[in-house]
Amino acid sequence: MELTTYSDLDKKWMALAIDLAWQGCYTTSPNPNVGCVIVSSDGNLVGQGAHLKAGEAHAEVHALRDAGKQAKGATAFVTLEPCSHTGRTPPCANALVNAGVKRVVVANVDPNPLVAGRGIKKLNEHGIETVTGVLADKAALLNRGFFKRMKQGKPFVSLKLAASMDGRIALSNGQSKWITGPEARRDVQRFRAKSCAILTGSGTVRADDPSLLIRPEQAQIDDYPNLPIRQPARYVIDSTGSLPDTFQIFNDGHKTIVFTTKEVTTPGSIEYCRVKQVGNHVDLDAMLMELGKREVNQLWVESGATLAGQLLSQQLVDELIIYLAPKLLGDQGLPMLKLPQYSHLAECPELWLKDLTLVGQDVRLTYHLK
Amino acid sequence: MELTTYSDLDKKWMALAIDLAWQGCYTTSPNPNVGCVIVSSDGNLVGQGAHLKAGEAHAEVHALRDAGKQAKGATAFVTLEPCSHTGRTPPCANALVNAGVKRVVVANVDPNPLVAGRGIKKLNEHGIETVTGVLADKAALLNRGFFKRMKQGKPFVSLKLAASMDGRIALSNGQSKWITGPEARRDVQRFRAKSCAILTGSGTVRADDPSLLIRPEQAQIDDYPNLPIRQPARYVIDSTGSLPDTFQIFNDGHKTIVFTTKEVTTPGSIEYCRVKQVGNHVDLDAMLMELGKREVNQLWVESGATLAGQLLSQQLVDELIIYLAPKLLGDQGLPMLKLPQYSHLAECPELWLKDLTLVGQDVRLTYHLK
Repeated sequence: MELTTYSDLDKKWMALAIDLAWQGCYTTSPNPNVGCVIVSSDGNLVGQGAHLKAGEAHAEVHALRDAGKQAKGATAFVTLEPCSHTGRTPPCANALVNAGVKRVVVANVDPNPLVAGRGIKKLNEHGIETVTGVLADKAALLNRGFFKRMKQGKPFVSLKLAASMDGRIALSNGQSKWITGPEARRDVQRFRAKSCAILTGSGTVRADDPSLLIRPEQAQIDDYPNLPIRQPARYVIDSTGSLPDTFQIFNDGHKTIVFTTKEVTTPGSIEYCRVKQVGNHVDLDAMLMELGKREVNQLWVESGATLAGQLLSQQLVDELIIYLAPKLLGDQGLPMLKLPQYSHLAECPELWLKDLTLVGQDVRLTYHLK
Repeated sequence: MELTTYSDLDKKWMALAIDLAWQGCYTTSPNPNVGCVIVSSDGNLVGQGAHLKAGEAHAEVHALRDAGKQAKGATAFVTLEPCSHTGRTPPCANALVNAGVKRVVVANVDPNPLVAGRGIKKLNEHGIETVTGVLADKAALLNRGFFKRMKQGKPFVSLKLAASMDGRIALSNGQSKWITGPEARRDVQRFRAKSCAILTGSGTVRADDPSLLIRPEQAQIDDYPNLPIRQPARYVIDSTGSLPDTFQIFNDGHKTIVFTTKEVTTPGSIEYCRVKQVGNHVDLDAMLMELGKREVNQLWVESGATLAGQLLSQQLVDELIIYLAPKLLGDQGLPMLKLPQYSHLAECPELWLKDLTLVGQDVRLTYHLK
């Protein structure tokens, strides 16, 4: 039963606010993506704005500035409940009250249990009518990472794999450059750019010496709002702390942190983060909690079959993104995923297909875990 | 440079003839699929027909009967060059001449080098204007198998594989029922129904004891023209001829033939076909030539990783159809394809993606070999 009272027109304006919010997808973290639209009482769009960077103005402030005096008596459409607390910027609920807004339409209530509903409450206390839940599902896609972190303390985990049609990520001799085509590799660059952090395993570092940076000339992101490009922090799991600091990720001037299970005293330039262990290995769930504490909303994992398989079998993956190339590597090639030996099909991890897209000559399949 | 003279209207009528021709896709073999449309000089559709079954009337005969006296002075649109020889039925070129048709528009010239052009020649000799090549590519899809057999003596080979997202066709204990969903399995039934023959290996027979028949209640083919359903002949490769006759394919009353490399003298109900050997195994190319001699246009292969890999690495597959299920079986599962060990990615078989379709919860990828 639908109890909220809102119109198709409200949905139309909220859809615009959501579009605006996406402008921040490369740059707002650790803050959420938020868009705001101000519509006058006679139905005209008078202000719009998006949050672009933590510490800078929120979406509502941009939109109210844009609207000026026309905000008086207007309706504000905001993708996320306006904040009621003073963080890096003053509370937006107050700004809406002060501007004389009459009605506030919200898509998602703040998922943080400590703040949820307070912004709405403050608006109501000042006689502002509020509606929540308008295009809530669509708006929630803006902040899958932020919302998960607020609720569970862990980032939204996207695991990326690139394989041949028959599920192999390299030849038996390790050769893997390149299985997928240039369009797929560019696509990966854009996913990296939208992530707060990138995770890989020590095996991948040893095998490929990857940079894991975003190469703007390859990514070709034409809607990037704030140059230079924000490089996500890189995290490497190396339980024993035995990776030497000679690999390029430790020497290119960008942030890389190594997760270990013990204190590493070797002198060198590597920054370590010690995490609880399970057996002799980093406890992956504890590691994700640590990443949550470090305000990582969206984690992008590019790894070999071992780490990928561990994350999947421990149910720690939210989204699996697989690029399948039109090549056959055969049974001698390296497998995509190391998983336990199952004796019944019912034990195997099951997936939901969320998206199917042709990227150049490759197919990109996006799955959520069942 | 386009030298043929035909109009968009010609294409429109040819498209209808092609649609009609598809009616025969389950039943015409070993004959080709052919459709025919008769259009009067004032532009009205006066006759249409399709070839449905070898030995029965050809498409032109059906369409001419339908048109009756209105065929006089009309244009006939035929997807394949009318035959000029007396086979199981009298030549269609004569029928068109006798009916007083003025112009004949053809999509594909007969690919058989011994007959190609003779039908056209006969029509021209009787003062009938002919045009060829109209929607030729679209019409050629009707008869990929027939055309290949006419040109190369071998059937068009479609290899079907069904695997988990990570390229595994069974658990390590062999369990594979079911990796794909009911929609994909129904889809496979329809492909079987369109094939002249189904090929598998002795390993698959031993492991799964499959029936490989079309189960009409599962296939749910609502456009099937001639019940009961034609069951494709089943062929099994068993180089040593050691499969016992206890498996269901040898005992269900439908045709099954076993390819061996030697004379088998064991008494039993199995029908054998001896083929040249390479090493200790059936020479797969010679086997395909044998299937061509047996008038198999379209061969549908459902096999394990060994036979699938041999066919692929010997470049004997025309089309690879893969159903990928939203499951992960892991590296302990059985591989999709056994292929040689490659030392460079450039040595791996490469594919062209021709189609990408969601079938229930599974993804169907259709590739041609590069």
